[in-house]
Amino acid sequence: MTKDEVFVEVAAKGFKSNLERADKLFSRLSEDELHREIAPGKNRVVYLWGHLTSVNDLMIPLLGIGERLHPEFDELFLSNPDRKFELPATRPVMAAWDQANAKLLKGVEAFSTDDWLLKHGSVSEEDFAKDPLRNRFAILLSRTSHLAYHLGQVVPAVK
Amino acid sequence: MTKDEVFVEVAAKGFKSNLERADKLFSRLSEDELHREIAPGKNRVVYLWGHLTSVNDLMIPLLGIGERLHPEFDELFLSNPDRKFELPATRPVMAAWDQANAKLLKGVEAFSTDDWLLKHGSVSEEDFAKDPLRNRFAILLSRTSHLAYHLGQVVPAVK
Repeated sequence: MTKDEVFVEVAAKGFKSNLERADKLFSRLSEDELHREIAPGKNRVVYLWGHLTSVNDLMIPLLGIGERLHPEFDELFLSNPDRKFELPATRPVMAAWDQANAKLLKGVEAFSTDDWLLKHGSVSEEDFAKDPLRNRFAILLSRTSHLAYHLGQVVPAVK
Repeated sequence: MTKDEVFVEVAAKGFKSNLERADKLFSRLSEDELHREIAPGKNRVVYLWGHLTSVNDLMIPLLGIGERLHPEFDELFLSNPDRKFELPATRPVMAAWDQANAKLLKGVEAFSTDDWLLKHGSVSEEDFAKDPLRNRFAILLSRTSHLAYHLGQVVPAVK
């Protein structure tokens, strides 16, 4: 393994292990647990599941993999807080989560180490020239932390 | 910047931004907020602050920077759950947090990119030869996620 490959492999492994942990956690929850609040008056667990689905779905274009699959979730889970809208049943959230993650992971598997250093999808060429840290690798790491952040909220609410 | 430097810089920036976020959050909390539970019957905020202090303090030897500063915290915040012991006053926790982070960050600043690929302090030479991913860089990323995980718990409890 080259040095670059080690850096990338450690980071990809960290993302995947957080994703697997989330997947195991969410998929075994009852409807009652999914509708619990993480703290009094705060987000419900199912909202966070939808939120993480939207965020992972958005990683697909951000990493240059292709078109995202579920832009219709953004209004429910990204641009508005919980309880603004009636949430959909659990099954469509679960299906979207599986689909988005499958496309994302398949895309990422095909990346070379250099691909990770390309600019991400929401920075201009001009801004990227000034700051090469605004790359796909930065998206991977920030989304890993974001996933861990919300996992930390869900675990004590359902255990 | 070389490619290696970009990978390392993105990761170091992610760790530091989570650390700064935690620092701002914890240091502005009242005694009342520090003694709140993150969920009914779960850890109190001050326990998590101490826990993160122990974990960061332990990063000092794990990354080969030097001797850790506060092993006396482990019994309170690492090897036992909250409420097993009476917790110390807030001030010593805050002082230890500041000291451990200062030593950790100073040590990390001096790392070359190759230093990040050296084995971490709790893996044997033999096991590291079999799995070069058990390096210091992996510690940095896993501790970033761990920090984000607990930040996610503290934020809704105190806001």
